[in-house]
Amino acid sequence: MKEKNEIDFASGLTCPIPKNDYDRVLLAHGGGGTLSHQLISKMFFSHFDNDLLNEQHDSAIFNIEKGKLAFTTDSYVVQPIFFPGGDIGELAVYGTVNDLTAAGAKPKFISVGFIIEEGFLMEELWQVVQSIKRAADNAGVIIATGDTKVVDKGNGDKIFINTSGIGIISEKINISPKNCKAGDKIILSGRIADHGITIMAARERLEFDTTINSDTAPLNGLFETIEHFGEKIHMMRDPTRGGIASTLNEIAETANVGIFIEEEKIPINGEVDAACEILGLDPLYIANEGKMIFIVSDDSADEILLTIRSHELGKEAEIIGTVTEEDSGIVIMKTTIGSKRVVDMISGEQLPRIC
Amino acid sequence: MKEKNEIDFASGLTCPIPKNDYDRVLLAHGGGGTLSHQLISKMFFSHFDNDLLNEQHDSAIFNIEKGKLAFTTDSYVVQPIFFPGGDIGELAVYGTVNDLTAAGAKPKFISVGFIIEEGFLMEELWQVVQSIKRAADNAGVIIATGDTKVVDKGNGDKIFINTSGIGIISEKINISPKNCKAGDKIILSGRIADHGITIMAARERLEFDTTINSDTAPLNGLFETIEHFGEKIHMMRDPTRGGIASTLNEIAETANVGIFIEEEKIPINGEVDAACEILGLDPLYIANEGKMIFIVSDDSADEILLTIRSHELGKEAEIIGTVTEEDSGIVIMKTTIGSKRVVDMISGEQLPRIC
Repeated sequence: MKEKNEIDFASGLTCPIPKNDYDRVLLAHGGGGTLSHQLISKMFFSHFDNDLLNEQHDSAIFNIEKGKLAFTTDSYVVQPIFFPGGDIGELAVYGTVNDLTAAGAKPKFISVGFIIEEGFLMEELWQVVQSIKRAADNAGVIIATGDTKVVDKGNGDKIFINTSGIGIISEKINISPKNCKAGDKIILSGRIADHGITIMAARERLEFDTTINSDTAPLNGLFETIEHFGEKIHMMRDPTRGGIASTLNEIAETANVGIFIEEEKIPINGEVDAACEILGLDPLYIANEGKMIFIVSDDSADEILLTIRSHELGKEAEIIGTVTEEDSGIVIMKTTIGSKRVVDMISGEQLPRIC
Repeated sequence: MKEKNEIDFASGLTCPIPKNDYDRVLLAHGGGGTLSHQLISKMFFSHFDNDLLNEQHDSAIFNIEKGKLAFTTDSYVVQPIFFPGGDIGELAVYGTVNDLTAAGAKPKFISVGFIIEEGFLMEELWQVVQSIKRAADNAGVIIATGDTKVVDKGNGDKIFINTSGIGIISEKINISPKNCKAGDKIILSGRIADHGITIMAARERLEFDTTINSDTAPLNGLFETIEHFGEKIHMMRDPTRGGIASTLNEIAETANVGIFIEEEKIPINGEVDAACEILGLDPLYIANEGKMIFIVSDDSADEILLTIRSHELGKEAEIIGTVTEEDSGIVIMKTTIGSKRVVDMISGEQLPRIC
């Protein structure tokens, strides 16, 4: 249990490493000596505060019931690290939460590994740490273990974060591309391309009429609302880097099925759409962070769609297409003008360091 | 099962991404599009080849029995990435294997997250990938999941690797600083400071009479030889960054005990010792990679020591000291000349980016 004064401290508006001591991260903060320990105990342990971390072991140790686990990892190198609607800390937590969710798992434990560039502002590190804590609380995951490395100035870029995660998969759930079959419906949980366009705008200092925000969000709560549909949910994936085009292509290829989508069904924010047009970008390829693609059994698709829409993060969900037997491995889109075109996988992301 | 030709391929002397196609890593190799997929499938999936990875899901999914799990993470930023006795790939696998081992766990699954600098030589990436595979096979762990990011040139340094790992702890094992008590013996598995001095020599192009090699090695096999001593093993930790001085200080502090060690009992390679003297460094603070500190019950210490010595990686093990009731939180060393001194924790590592 926390003491009263610890709660006050952890509410956290003041950086626990006083500016007069160290206003920037030094190499020694990653050296394994006293400065490392001060940083880890005063900033990380105090703020993330939980029984697993408080053991101060190199590994977190916990009991687990017999069953299926999901295990995932992602490194985050987004630039800029603070952007409208989020920051690298929140992104790192939600990204891993969503990867576990896409496996049909309930996210339980995450690890946080920092690679910090020498000279990074201590105050900015503190902002990121607070954001990680808020995001973990919001998603209901425990920060179980961590690591901090500092690289010399010029050999990193402010901060990179790796999060790995462990989730538990209920017996009723079986998510796999192999389950996709002709007739299945493809549900998209909401508007596309918000994250990518936000990062692009922030980086290039583009000004749009009103603010576009990253859609970064944890999708485990949304999945919980439909979990009782069990094996009617065949496949899930969060369309991040490469956008929904790349994700659908991956599914078509791995599952050996065709995918048919209708452009007019794909939700998009008008301002994002306009920005894409001005920039000459195809929103199908732009990264999302808080969206999920569900491939579900035809006979339950409408009911699952309604349930998804009942959740705040799924209220704009749409059935955007169908799994087909023909055109195996290929994604075909009926455009708004009625023609059909193949939606290829592009060679790279239009924008590096999107996540 | 692998096909014959895949085995030949995986024996791996030729980089699976032909030089004429891409001799260096491009930003697009981390973009989530075609180039990412080529790199991941041709180099990572083909070479790491296992059922979990072959599912090509964002998460690995596996069954697990009810019990205690250990979960750990570490990022590796060592510079140079190739050094006498090892490289960053091997280090990343063994480091996480050893962190799990230090929790008393049998390492089972690891994740591998790459952050690659644009322009990194494809051939060097291939060397690292092969090294990771060899190390994972050697330690008996499965590369369950992974991630690849590419950062623009000048904002990284060749390659950083995060490995996270999951291990299973047997019911008979209970490793915790809280178990340390006065009278316990402190066993060190072998010679100190090899890794740190190797990296220092490689970086500064120092020439010693003969070659000093990194001691990077997986210690799970060594632990298996003493696992049957069960609760007689109170605490374990691998003394990496900050050397045995920092590790012993951490244990003394967390366990609220005193630690008394004898300098003459601490094994060290004569050349390493000489190098430390020339460079004005204290080997107690120099990083190790393939060493373990065991704190064990007094009544079984000799038997445990003999068992450790029966293993290739423990043949130079020594009892270097004792846990004491007095001097709580402090490490005291009897020097070779017979005086006593406090072994403090220093503020940082003498050398950044040691692991």
